[in-house]
Amino acid sequence: MASLFRGSRYIWLRWNKHVDVAFVSTRSMASKTPVGFIGLGNMGSPMAKNLLKNGYPVIATDVFPQSCKELQDTGAQVVDSPADVAEKADRIITMLPSSPNVIEVYTGPNGILKKVKKGTLLIDSSTIDPAVSREMAVAAEKKGAVFMDAPVSGGVGAASMAKLTFMVGGVVEEYNAAKELLTCMGANVIYCGQVGTGQAAKICNNMLLAIGMIGTAETMNLGIRLGLDPKLLAKILNMSSGRCWSSDTYNPVPGVMEGVPSANNYQGGFGTTLMAKDLGLAQNTATNTKTPIPLGSLAHQIYRVMCSRGYANKDFSSVFQFLREEEGQ
Amino acid sequence: MASLFRGSRYIWLRWNKHVDVAFVSTRSMASKTPVGFIGLGNMGSPMAKNLLKNGYPVIATDVFPQSCKELQDTGAQVVDSPADVAEKADRIITMLPSSPNVIEVYTGPNGILKKVKKGTLLIDSSTIDPAVSREMAVAAEKKGAVFMDAPVSGGVGAASMAKLTFMVGGVVEEYNAAKELLTCMGANVIYCGQVGTGQAAKICNNMLLAIGMIGTAETMNLGIRLGLDPKLLAKILNMSSGRCWSSDTYNPVPGVMEGVPSANNYQGGFGTTLMAKDLGLAQNTATNTKTPIPLGSLAHQIYRVMCSRGYANKDFSSVFQFLREEEGQ
Amino acid sequence: MASLFRGSRYIWLRWNKHVDVAFVSTRSMASKTPVGFIGLGNMGSPMAKNLLKNGYPVIATDVFPQSCKELQDTGAQVVDSPADVAEKADRIITMLPSSPNVIEVYTGPNGILKKVKKGTLLIDSSTIDPAVSREMAVAAEKKGAVFMDAPVSGGVGAASMAKLTFMVGGVVEEYNAAKELLTCMGANVIYCGQVGTGQAAKICNNMLLAIGMIGTAETMNLGIRLGLDPKLLAKILNMSSGRCWSSDTYNPVPGVMEGVPSANNYQGGFGTTLMAKDLGLAQNTATNTKTPIPLGSLAHQIYRVMCSRGYANKDFSSVFQFLREEEGQ
Amino acid sequence: MASLFRGSRYIWLRWNKHVDVAFVSTRSMASKTPVGFIGLGNMGSPMAKNLLKNGYPVIATDVFPQSCKELQDTGAQVVDSPADVAEKADRIITMLPSSPNVIEVYTGPNGILKKVKKGTLLIDSSTIDPAVSREMAVAAEKKGAVFMDAPVSGGVGAASMAKLTFMVGGVVEEYNAAKELLTCMGANVIYCGQVGTGQAAKICNNMLLAIGMIGTAETMNLGIRLGLDPKLLAKILNMSSGRCWSSDTYNPVPGVMEGVPSANNYQGGFGTTLMAKDLGLAQNTATNTKTPIPLGSLAHQIYRVMCSRGYANKDFSSVFQFLREEEGQ
Repeated sequence: MASLFRGSRYIWLRWNKHVDVAFVSTRSMASKTPVGFIGLGNMGSPMAKNLLKNGYPVIATDVFPQSCKELQDTGAQVVDSPADVAEKADRIITMLPSSPNVIEVYTGPNGILKKVKKGTLLIDSSTIDPAVSREMAVAAEKKGAVFMDAPVSGGVGAASMAKLTFMVGGVVEEYNAAKELLTCMGANVIYCGQVGTGQAAKICNNMLLAIGMIGTAETMNLGIRLGLDPKLLAKILNMSSGRCWSSDTYNPVPGVMEGVPSANNYQGGFGTTLMAKDLGLAQNTATNTKTPIPLGSLAHQIYRVMCSRGYANKDFSSVFQFLREEEGQ
Repeated sequence: MASLFRGSRYIWLRWNKHVDVAFVSTRSMASKTPVGFIGLGNMGSPMAKNLLKNGYPVIATDVFPQSCKELQDTGAQVVDSPADVAEKADRIITMLPSSPNVIEVYTGPNGILKKVKKGTLLIDSSTIDPAVSREMAVAAEKKGAVFMDAPVSGGVGAASMAKLTFMVGGVVEEYNAAKELLTCMGANVIYCGQVGTGQAAKICNNMLLAIGMIGTAETMNLGIRLGLDPKLLAKILNMSSGRCWSSDTYNPVPGVMEGVPSANNYQGGFGTTLMAKDLGLAQNTATNTKTPIPLGSLAHQIYRVMCSRGYANKDFSSVFQFLREEEGQ
Repeated sequence: MASLFRGSRYIWLRWNKHVDVAFVSTRSMASKTPVGFIGLGNMGSPMAKNLLKNGYPVIATDVFPQSCKELQDTGAQVVDSPADVAEKADRIITMLPSSPNVIEVYTGPNGILKKVKKGTLLIDSSTIDPAVSREMAVAAEKKGAVFMDAPVSGGVGAASMAKLTFMVGGVVEEYNAAKELLTCMGANVIYCGQVGTGQAAKICNNMLLAIGMIGTAETMNLGIRLGLDPKLLAKILNMSSGRCWSSDTYNPVPGVMEGVPSANNYQGGFGTTLMAKDLGLAQNTATNTKTPIPLGSLAHQIYRVMCSRGYANKDFSSVFQFLREEEGQ
Repeated sequence: MASLFRGSRYIWLRWNKHVDVAFVSTRSMASKTPVGFIGLGNMGSPMAKNLLKNGYPVIATDVFPQSCKELQDTGAQVVDSPADVAEKADRIITMLPSSPNVIEVYTGPNGILKKVKKGTLLIDSSTIDPAVSREMAVAAEKKGAVFMDAPVSGGVGAASMAKLTFMVGGVVEEYNAAKELLTCMGANVIYCGQVGTGQAAKICNNMLLAIGMIGTAETMNLGIRLGLDPKLLAKILNMSSGRCWSSDTYNPVPGVMEGVPSANNYQGGFGTTLMAKDLGLAQNTATNTKTPIPLGSLAHQIYRVMCSRGYANKDFSSVFQFLREEEGQ
């Protein structure tokens, strides 16, 4: 029932302290039994390949046949639907674009939960609303399965090189089982707490990242206008209390650093539209928990306006360019 | 003439590239001739004492007789006015609360410039509008003196222990002469460029600091609401792209770190009212140079509201407390 | 299925132009057949009484027995659940606090849709997310019923005096049937378009109201600081382009107007917590439709902070008091 | 002395209640003696012509010879400098672009105050910082002259048709003398209080105007995204509490109203760059008086970014266009 799942989001928020019941795993712990993988996009595809490289049989599906074909050529078995994956694997990883996709893949007519086996471990690496992660966990629990959220930081390059960072939420008894698989795809695996806290950690980090980046862009621009050399200003900030990742590792001003998107006309990196999406998640969770986030909200709005003004596909450090006066003025 | 100085601010902004003429110092370079010191407040007093400790005779004045008396007891000579200091010293340091005080002390009826000797080195360590620094430099130049701005970072403790950082703006030919004195009072002396750039660097750093602090407070609060342990969240941020000085060195959440104001009910540290003042300077320079600073402006407004709501004298990391829901709600 | 309803939200957004199929009403048009009423709170109770006054038999329910008892004493028939109401009435009005309640009352285990008759007219006067209104309309349509959203403006007083304004969204063919009932409870009934547009109109109005109110409070406070008499400033604004409802009808400065909450220590009126809720809805719809609302977002954050600082139950014009400097500073 | 005027700004703020000493006018009250006019730009030129039309001899000057020539052809006497105007007229009106120009024209080497006669009435219709108006009043008083601020609302059209609104600050005893001249150029003359309050009223109005305009643009855009017809939404807002001048008189959405800049590709009207200037004045006065203006600050930043992104010369209602998603996205 729609109302049950929907309503359960709110009930869950209130009662979540009482549902951390221990799950007793009944699945095989033999490490090389098949692993399901659903969502073979830019991130999911190299992640699934890393499972194959580590000797795990992979049973995969995706809505795009071409993506399935490519993974099949690497040795995976392709099936028709999430339900079919659930029939054949008792460990499944999902990597999907947004909350509605996750809901569809888990609870839809051909979703995982239609045919999931008791004791199956479900790991969702999508970046979505933590409330949806909690809903999925409740729905999975009703089928005797275990759902964990494990969103990643790091981009396509990190996915290819198995250098992702996973932030994991879910029952602690299943963490080691999840970690066994996640270490094949990432360099860091961090346990964050109950289900949804992996998402929470990711959203929190990206909100502070966005604030720091826009703040760095404003500050560098102001300093340049006041006559400071940008490299010198960056150096001063980085030895002082203004220091942050955006000033010392990913400076948004062309010419200050090499090997970052600002050195390459803001190509590559983390797109403005993706940052706007993550800030939308931060805003939703803040609104729903009645948490004030004045700078986070404004950062969201700035990236939203940038998407409307032609910056959607540039790296999110292009906010420096957005704030600079146009030439000729 | 008021109009000349005022107007000159704007002309200066336009023409400042052409005025970096070399000053030929005519003052004694003998290091232990007297140094003037004007402004003996919480910061100025320990700074002047450090000059005395380094063997410099100090000729001082302040509007508060008690402050003068205390320094006199430590060995300084006290005189009646800035003009009197200028008569007796050809190196003068000023440490004053705000722009109007600086204007008065330099260009007022009993100001330094009334009796300044040709070739005198004037170092202003106040944190003020860089445009006022430039005005003072022009006024000093007319009298044959040299004005440099050298605002500090670091608080009363750093001032006492001679651990301040000085950001210095002014003609490069005089930088070594300034550095000789400033190293008696600080651990770092950074040359930033033409006059006013010391102020610019300080203002820029503090604006980014304020943005990072409020951002950290919002993020930590949101994460806690979403079920994350604050220490764990801080750890995750600090190994990720959300990392900043406020998250890894001065965390605003009680219980996350020791030895910071948040561990001591936000006593000590850098007061909200002082941060609001520095953000006001950032706002003024941004407005006057037509530079957009959306997050910097909002940070200013948040600290301004906090000053109105009882947080004026708490450390600026108390924004975490300001944003938390009140107990009992 | 949860996924169907959830997913449908997104599909609906994309396809809503194609679903305005005509509904053929099969319910009795005789005006004095029973009307169902669910939600007997501060607003719902006087609304239901106005239906009774107009000669309509009312079949009601609420989760609070005391509320049911009171309406029963006025002549209504009380039943146990929304499903029971649906069994006995083919016109039903709902007036509930928020989206989850609406979802529960319509689609829950004892919800309206469990026993709704074909052709029933369902009118929801709650203020909720328009996407939820659209979901409810789809769910109702599957049962052969018609759902319309009809949120109100005006408070408890207007509800008692049948002076509410209704903003109505839904299929135009049913608008007259809805209007027949709504005119018993309100002075204005406005047709806004397809389902969800009633909510949209309400949310838009309240967002602009909040912006205007905070803007008026800031402006009046600044003017007073600059030496203007508040009554004179209000008069000047109201004859100029700064004029808005908050300046000319509901001025937030004590002493400027009579009969408004600012004249009564911000008691009564429209509570800050309710405004924060409506701004949360505006924020959610803006985030979900990727619409930038920088001032709307900041207004939301300001009211959210006010709720955390003791203003939750004061009228929303108390933002003037929130921004004023505290006495004694 | 610069320091005196500068310092006096701050003293004045503190002591302004005590300086409303009565000025005894010694100038001729005969109405058709010459009137000085300085500043013959888009606004000043038609204003001066209206004085000529009303039979006043005009003695004028401007930095652009062409502007002087044109007014000379209409019958004015042109002289070389503000000082020369002051020598020949004991009532002088100034209409200048910004604070530095006003300072130069009044207190510069060839400024009015160099040759002003005792008892001269000086009326400044420029829009500037009220603190500068107060400085000018102090400087004028020292020469025995009276300075009043009288900024206008209304554009070039209103200036030509003598339909301007003047907001006047200054000693009340001189108000009637000022009004005699101002009524030749405007339809409304409003006395606001002590010197500087005319500026304060103008700045306050324009800040609330900017907030209302951006708020209206956001709200209309959000409503359209949610499926509302823009004309219908405007109608609903205008009969509700969201109503403001920008929604009911100057709607920013093309197609909602005729005869406004939004109906003409945002040509004409009040340019974004001028609004950004006025918001900069509001921000400066707020910063200097420590008044929180969160929405006013953000409105300032939005118009500042718009100036950087190609909207400088469009009407300020073009913020609607700025916030809309780009076509093709």
